[in-house]
Amino acid sequence: MKACVLHAPKDLRLEDEDVGAPGPGEVIVQIGAGGICGSDLHYYFHGGFGAVRLREKMVLGHEVAGSVAAIGPGVTRVKAGDQVAVNPSRPCGQCKYCLAGKPNHCLNMQFYGSAMPFPHIQGAFRQALRAKESQCELAPVVSVGEAAFAEPLSCGLHAIERAGNLAGRRVLVAGAGPIGALAVAAARNAGAAEIVATDIAAAPLSVVAKMGADRVIDVSKDGDALADYRADKGQFDVMIEASGSDKALRAGLDVVRPQGVIVQMGLGGGEATLPLNLLVAKELELRGTFRFHPEFARAAQLIAARRIDVRPLLTETIPFTEFERAFALAADRGKAIKVQLAFQ
Amino acid sequence: MKACVLHAPKDLRLEDEDVGAPGPGEVIVQIGAGGICGSDLHYYFHGGFGAVRLREKMVLGHEVAGSVAAIGPGVTRVKAGDQVAVNPSRPCGQCKYCLAGKPNHCLNMQFYGSAMPFPHIQGAFRQALRAKESQCELAPVVSVGEAAFAEPLSCGLHAIERAGNLAGRRVLVAGAGPIGALAVAAARNAGAAEIVATDIAAAPLSVVAKMGADRVIDVSKDGDALADYRADKGQFDVMIEASGSDKALRAGLDVVRPQGVIVQMGLGGGEATLPLNLLVAKELELRGTFRFHPEFARAAQLIAARRIDVRPLLTETIPFTEFERAFALAADRGKAIKVQLAFQ
Amino acid sequence: MKACVLHAPKDLRLEDEDVGAPGPGEVIVQIGAGGICGSDLHYYFHGGFGAVRLREKMVLGHEVAGSVAAIGPGVTRVKAGDQVAVNPSRPCGQCKYCLAGKPNHCLNMQFYGSAMPFPHIQGAFRQALRAKESQCELAPVVSVGEAAFAEPLSCGLHAIERAGNLAGRRVLVAGAGPIGALAVAAARNAGAAEIVATDIAAAPLSVVAKMGADRVIDVSKDGDALADYRADKGQFDVMIEASGSDKALRAGLDVVRPQGVIVQMGLGGGEATLPLNLLVAKELELRGTFRFHPEFARAAQLIAARRIDVRPLLTETIPFTEFERAFALAADRGKAIKVQLAFQ
Amino acid sequence: MKACVLHAPKDLRLEDEDVGAPGPGEVIVQIGAGGICGSDLHYYFHGGFGAVRLREKMVLGHEVAGSVAAIGPGVTRVKAGDQVAVNPSRPCGQCKYCLAGKPNHCLNMQFYGSAMPFPHIQGAFRQALRAKESQCELAPVVSVGEAAFAEPLSCGLHAIERAGNLAGRRVLVAGAGPIGALAVAAARNAGAAEIVATDIAAAPLSVVAKMGADRVIDVSKDGDALADYRADKGQFDVMIEASGSDKALRAGLDVVRPQGVIVQMGLGGGEATLPLNLLVAKELELRGTFRFHPEFARAAQLIAARRIDVRPLLTETIPFTEFERAFALAADRGKAIKVQLAFQ
Repeated sequence: MKACVLHAPKDLRLEDEDVGAPGPGEVIVQIGAGGICGSDLHYYFHGGFGAVRLREKMVLGHEVAGSVAAIGPGVTRVKAGDQVAVNPSRPCGQCKYCLAGKPNHCLNMQFYGSAMPFPHIQGAFRQALRAKESQCELAPVVSVGEAAFAEPLSCGLHAIERAGNLAGRRVLVAGAGPIGALAVAAARNAGAAEIVATDIAAAPLSVVAKMGADRVIDVSKDGDALADYRADKGQFDVMIEASGSDKALRAGLDVVRPQGVIVQMGLGGGEATLPLNLLVAKELELRGTFRFHPEFARAAQLIAARRIDVRPLLTETIPFTEFERAFALAADRGKAIKVQLAFQ
Repeated sequence: MKACVLHAPKDLRLEDEDVGAPGPGEVIVQIGAGGICGSDLHYYFHGGFGAVRLREKMVLGHEVAGSVAAIGPGVTRVKAGDQVAVNPSRPCGQCKYCLAGKPNHCLNMQFYGSAMPFPHIQGAFRQALRAKESQCELAPVVSVGEAAFAEPLSCGLHAIERAGNLAGRRVLVAGAGPIGALAVAAARNAGAAEIVATDIAAAPLSVVAKMGADRVIDVSKDGDALADYRADKGQFDVMIEASGSDKALRAGLDVVRPQGVIVQMGLGGGEATLPLNLLVAKELELRGTFRFHPEFARAAQLIAARRIDVRPLLTETIPFTEFERAFALAADRGKAIKVQLAFQ
Repeated sequence: MKACVLHAPKDLRLEDEDVGAPGPGEVIVQIGAGGICGSDLHYYFHGGFGAVRLREKMVLGHEVAGSVAAIGPGVTRVKAGDQVAVNPSRPCGQCKYCLAGKPNHCLNMQFYGSAMPFPHIQGAFRQALRAKESQCELAPVVSVGEAAFAEPLSCGLHAIERAGNLAGRRVLVAGAGPIGALAVAAARNAGAAEIVATDIAAAPLSVVAKMGADRVIDVSKDGDALADYRADKGQFDVMIEASGSDKALRAGLDVVRPQGVIVQMGLGGGEATLPLNLLVAKELELRGTFRFHPEFARAAQLIAARRIDVRPLLTETIPFTEFERAFALAADRGKAIKVQLAFQ
Repeated sequence: MKACVLHAPKDLRLEDEDVGAPGPGEVIVQIGAGGICGSDLHYYFHGGFGAVRLREKMVLGHEVAGSVAAIGPGVTRVKAGDQVAVNPSRPCGQCKYCLAGKPNHCLNMQFYGSAMPFPHIQGAFRQALRAKESQCELAPVVSVGEAAFAEPLSCGLHAIERAGNLAGRRVLVAGAGPIGALAVAAARNAGAAEIVATDIAAAPLSVVAKMGADRVIDVSKDGDALADYRADKGQFDVMIEASGSDKALRAGLDVVRPQGVIVQMGLGGGEATLPLNLLVAKELELRGTFRFHPEFARAAQLIAARRIDVRPLLTETIPFTEFERAFALAADRGKAIKVQLAFQ
């Protein structure tokens, strides 16, 4: 069994790993597909982002699905042969945030493929993975590649959960990459009355239109394309900021109505300069959203039932042995939305 | 009857004004006291702030109280002789925000002493004022100077309303000027479990301690005085940012717990540079607060019953004819918290 | 032009009415279809319900749609020929509830076809109706009968608005009549994870399955069909009680999880006997829902775009001249979900 | 060491108990005072209430405070000699409700002196108690009797937490027994604008006035004393129902404003007959409140700081050896608010 082990920027090696036998409550998952995420790209090309740096070798990857190969004692939720999406989030279940129903803020979080803690948390780009039963969510019928969208969709679902009730609301989504596109899909599923998506590239906008946006706007072409939405202090009830761009966030402050909500998903360079006086005068609410937890099970169900159809987002599936080509394509925003690795 | 008319920066003139007779639903208020607010100082010394500039002569002032001198036809809420605080906020009652219960976002707001709209809205630093009955809130028993705190206290009450339920919560208030101090008083009244106030000057901190802060910290002296509050990702449930300082806001991001709320009152220079990645990773909520509305009546009641005792905040009362000295003192943060003009 | 004027129980007469010319801001709507609601049935067969009794003659009806025949001065939202749903709710726009964003609690409400106030508010079962422009919502493309579902759908949308965010939640809907069925459709549109509908008759259950219920249960057949949902103190996050039955409400207290929400739509006989100790011990929230307001525009949009397809609910359309047959059919729960009158 | 062991109705025996040595994380508390609660009275006089019946012998009591006599290994929060209130609520910390931040709904709750589960959970009316460190909250300075009010005050604090933000709200509290009186105190502490308390007896009303009620009304004397509060569909934002009386709850439906909240604390006979049509038409929210959890620490702090002064509620302290007299007095609503047993 091979795993994608990153030793240093651009030094990714396929190394043998022995996954062992499943213990009590554990399962062995034969990984079928793994999506390459922005953080994987940062690790691969730059060795990290911001203060998070690779300090030892680490298996990449956290957007994976596969089929159950073996189960350990006491496992009842899944059986061998089941297709499952694997939740990369493993909170401790004992700290004060876990006990407050906020496991995404766990003080001892272990999240696959993350160099935030040291030792790093090893990831899931591997042919076989030993995981806890509770991490596995059934995602039958659809392709394993679709199932591997459960993780990024969870982020979108959590973002709209943070936004509050969207039923009947007008929503602006800035940024049409995979995260923005899945936020659009989540908002459509939640009954948003109208969804406008913006980006600075045509390709992702054409995809996001298929994910449920009522209108897409290329803000690189029309300098003031949102002008109409500024009427009466702003027309949108909610903005989902998924671009990580200061400029997009500022534009949102103008078009979100007083007491409206802006959910910040994108991290960008870490800092942003904001016209706080506008946030104050309109009593806007700027809320962060970070990862997910109960949303993972929901994401798997939505994908399996194709209530949210993620297929427009999959650009290409590439054998994991061709990881160089895969990471290069994934990094090319003009060509790729989501690139997945095939592990079998 | 005289009014304080600002013609240009530092060109304030006492001019005669004829207030006329009260029409239906109107009252004439003999103004007793008027507090000098930060915006008055900006107009007086600099002719405005940000994009808001004095473009014609304007009577200053919006923190006033007095006694009813005469009432017009149909007035029932007040009678001649009553001491009242006068609400400077006059929403239209017909726009979509008024009909949504958000009159502070009225599309046609007339707020005393504001150069935001043109023609400017004339203010209340005058010996007699004609106002709507509905603007007047009874504030008996206490001094007229105390009654004139109803407006800034309303801002504090609205800020904590924006923060949500504070009962049993731990609250950090940054900035111990009049607004911060009244936010402290409002938070104490609302049952906050613990209130920590910070500033960079000793004088206001000694005052805010009298307004209900459990602990005051001079952050100019101890560079990392809040370090203990960073434990477990942050100890405060809520921060009220009343300093307008980038640095204070940043410090708050570190000590407010995940999913905690930061209410931004201060406007500062208009812009702020923020570590958005921290806001995202901790899922903080940054909420603006702007003026008030139902809170004004509540403020008058709290002051009249001395459930909130504003007296520690009053630095000096100065005859309005000595306005130069009054504005100079009000601008001196080392000496003054709140300076009021006496109009009779 | 004829109108359906009720003089006494079962004494409905088709009388001539002159609708006049449209004044400023008014339109004349040629009514195409009008749905018969439960309250219409109560007036027609029993002269009212509870304390609400017919005390003078009254035109029935409030679920109507038609085409604009003429517009008065200043009308801009609609033009002659437009198909519109007509909002029967006419709040005053000036009372304290209207100014608090709660027009459905208007102190001076005029709601079509209601004998609550005296003089009664005349209804909309008439060939031509003079209405305010603001009451008209465009509902193009679909049949006029579908457009006439805007009013009952508004009730469903408001009920789920009262329930809070349903995205990803498990929902029980008790009662599969038109109101329950539209609540199901609204919950599905709002992203509910799972919707279970119950009733005591097979016919409406077969219809509600088409409106989006994942599972339908005939509780008349299986005395304890909900037993599985009692596990772990209850499995549903939300219950929508649309049956008006004590028994259904009680059953819900057992299967809604601690701190879950029960929205009460049905009125039943007015009184209900409840095991309050269960509501207390599980900290359930029982919330009333009453009419709607902003939801009307949303309902028209959802119907016009067929995001909610109301066609399965329409049992039969009957010429208004055959009102006796229409009311008889509408009252037969075994045969009818929604019966509409055709007015042209 | 003696404990108050109930064998059957009115068969309470003082039996020897060996409390043993404190294990890791445990402390031995020498109990100083224990308040007699309504459930203790039900067990003592009737062997239980509703379906909850005494099926084996059980130590009564759950409102206790004392001083730490010994600590086990690893204990850091308290030391020998500290006066503490002991939290009788011991959730499992592992079930889904514990992990959702709702430990009061724990599936495996162990709450002192409760016959709900079998085996029963032994109570705290004993001279010495072995408890977990985490159950102990410091309550220094005040009398041990005051400290023993931490548990019932927690119920009041939780009730107002369930009510939402009370700052500036008008609150009606029905029932002026210990629970109602502590709800009044909690509402006052949380900044309620006005608190009206009702009861059918003069004695408790005179006490509740000392706890912070602005007005008390004996509804047994004036059949329609609340009539003025019915204006405009109701004047109270919130009602706390602490009487367990159907009649009081019904009266509240009339005087709480549309969309207002009624928090039900009292259990009464278990069932209540309600005019649901009023709840529907006014869109009221009826919420249960059950026990508490984070509020216990807050209660101990409020009592220790005398921010809430519970002394007016203590009718008499009686040596536990005179338990017969104590229970008889506690059951006499005309004479007693709260009776405590002294254990040393």
